[in-house]
Amino acid sequence: MARRIDDLQCKGYKIIQDTDGFCFGMDAVLLANYAAENIKKGTSVADFGSGTGIISILLAAKTEAFKIYGIEIQKEVADMSKESVSLNGLEDRVEIINVDIKNIKNTLKQDSLNYVVSNPPYMNSGLKNRDEAKLISRHEIKCNFKDIASAAAYSLKTAGKFYLIHRSERLAEILAELRSKNLEPKRIRFIYPYKDKESNLFLLEAIKGARCAMKVERPLIVYEDVNKYTKEIHEIYGV
Amino acid sequence: MARRIDDLQCKGYKIIQDTDGFCFGMDAVLLANYAAENIKKGTSVADFGSGTGIISILLAAKTEAFKIYGIEIQKEVADMSKESVSLNGLEDRVEIINVDIKNIKNTLKQDSLNYVVSNPPYMNSGLKNRDEAKLISRHEIKCNFKDIASAAAYSLKTAGKFYLIHRSERLAEILAELRSKNLEPKRIRFIYPYKDKESNLFLLEAIKGARCAMKVERPLIVYEDVNKYTKEIHEIYGV
Repeated sequence: MARRIDDLQCKGYKIIQDTDGFCFGMDAVLLANYAAENIKKGTSVADFGSGTGIISILLAAKTEAFKIYGIEIQKEVADMSKESVSLNGLEDRVEIINVDIKNIKNTLKQDSLNYVVSNPPYMNSGLKNRDEAKLISRHEIKCNFKDIASAAAYSLKTAGKFYLIHRSERLAEILAELRSKNLEPKRIRFIYPYKDKESNLFLLEAIKGARCAMKVERPLIVYEDVNKYTKEIHEIYGV
Repeated sequence: MARRIDDLQCKGYKIIQDTDGFCFGMDAVLLANYAAENIKKGTSVADFGSGTGIISILLAAKTEAFKIYGIEIQKEVADMSKESVSLNGLEDRVEIINVDIKNIKNTLKQDSLNYVVSNPPYMNSGLKNRDEAKLISRHEIKCNFKDIASAAAYSLKTAGKFYLIHRSERLAEILAELRSKNLEPKRIRFIYPYKDKESNLFLLEAIKGARCAMKVERPLIVYEDVNKYTKEIHEIYGV
């Protein structure tokens, strides 16, 4: 396993990644930012499918949440993320738990959390990566979106918020799944690579038990030109 | 009833409108354009809630559809739109039918149409207009979206397409309703008044019996600046 340590450009926090495995991408950073804007002081958060720990650590940096649980099914990945938590001295606030989301009832209390965030496996079909760890991180092998929505609905308090990033091609399916679990989609922001291109991803906020009515927020455009980020993306990356 | 005749800037076609009633807006023009790009020669189309006849007449101008049915519940409005059809000499291709969409089974055959378009009443609550005709055109008084989706599902052939414009705040609800009727949302385009503002409307294509996977198309921005349309809107209006 080849490792590298990256600087998160945020309070000096760092993260350990396996360069042969799944490394975090822009989607994790965008989701952490989207959620962080809304996470209040003294609250509890769970990150479902926490992987390298990138989102949990960014949320520790960007919010005053009291407790952040990173839930990760893959033991090796969970162990590596625990090292990242220690490296940043965040053991008090960030707890990585190596458990299957489908067994969340053995780990978290019902109706107990203020927030859930998830950057789940995107793909339910198509080509698979050969490498096992990448495969589990990207494809719905060990859990599908239904499992994640069920776990969020179970663990969130009423009016608790679920933040999610997912692929635009799965929009209808994801919205339907959320609604069927009483997680009402309230805000959505589509991410377009360029202003004249199809959206590939969306950021979403669903609220447990809320009434039906949603806001489609201003478009988030990633590139202004080839290899040139827009001002907003520069601001999110803090560079 | 005060009337005016407007030029549609398209093949010299004109439309009669009641200036005290509901006049067509940009949404009708955007929907007609979105649908027209996909409507093939020799096909059949129904416009559910055809109102002044604006969409039916624009589709006659912009496509080679063989037959276009305008279905309108309000007798006075339907009569006026018949006059517009005659004024443009379109009686052979455009047939306005004054019937309640809930009784569509008495009017159209099951699995018979290639396309359905609808610019339905947007509002399911809130303030009502005092004027009766405006009220029926804008609010779900006489029919709700469920009725329209049911009628589309009934009258479309398998793989037939349903084009729709609706309010972004009702996104989750509309997608869920379509899917429950086996009308799979396949393409959606969000309309943003400005590039840095929330979306107010979306254009959508659903396909009867299609598999689940959708495309979120490039954003449609209306204004470049105050009172200044973007190039794309200018092109749609043909000015």
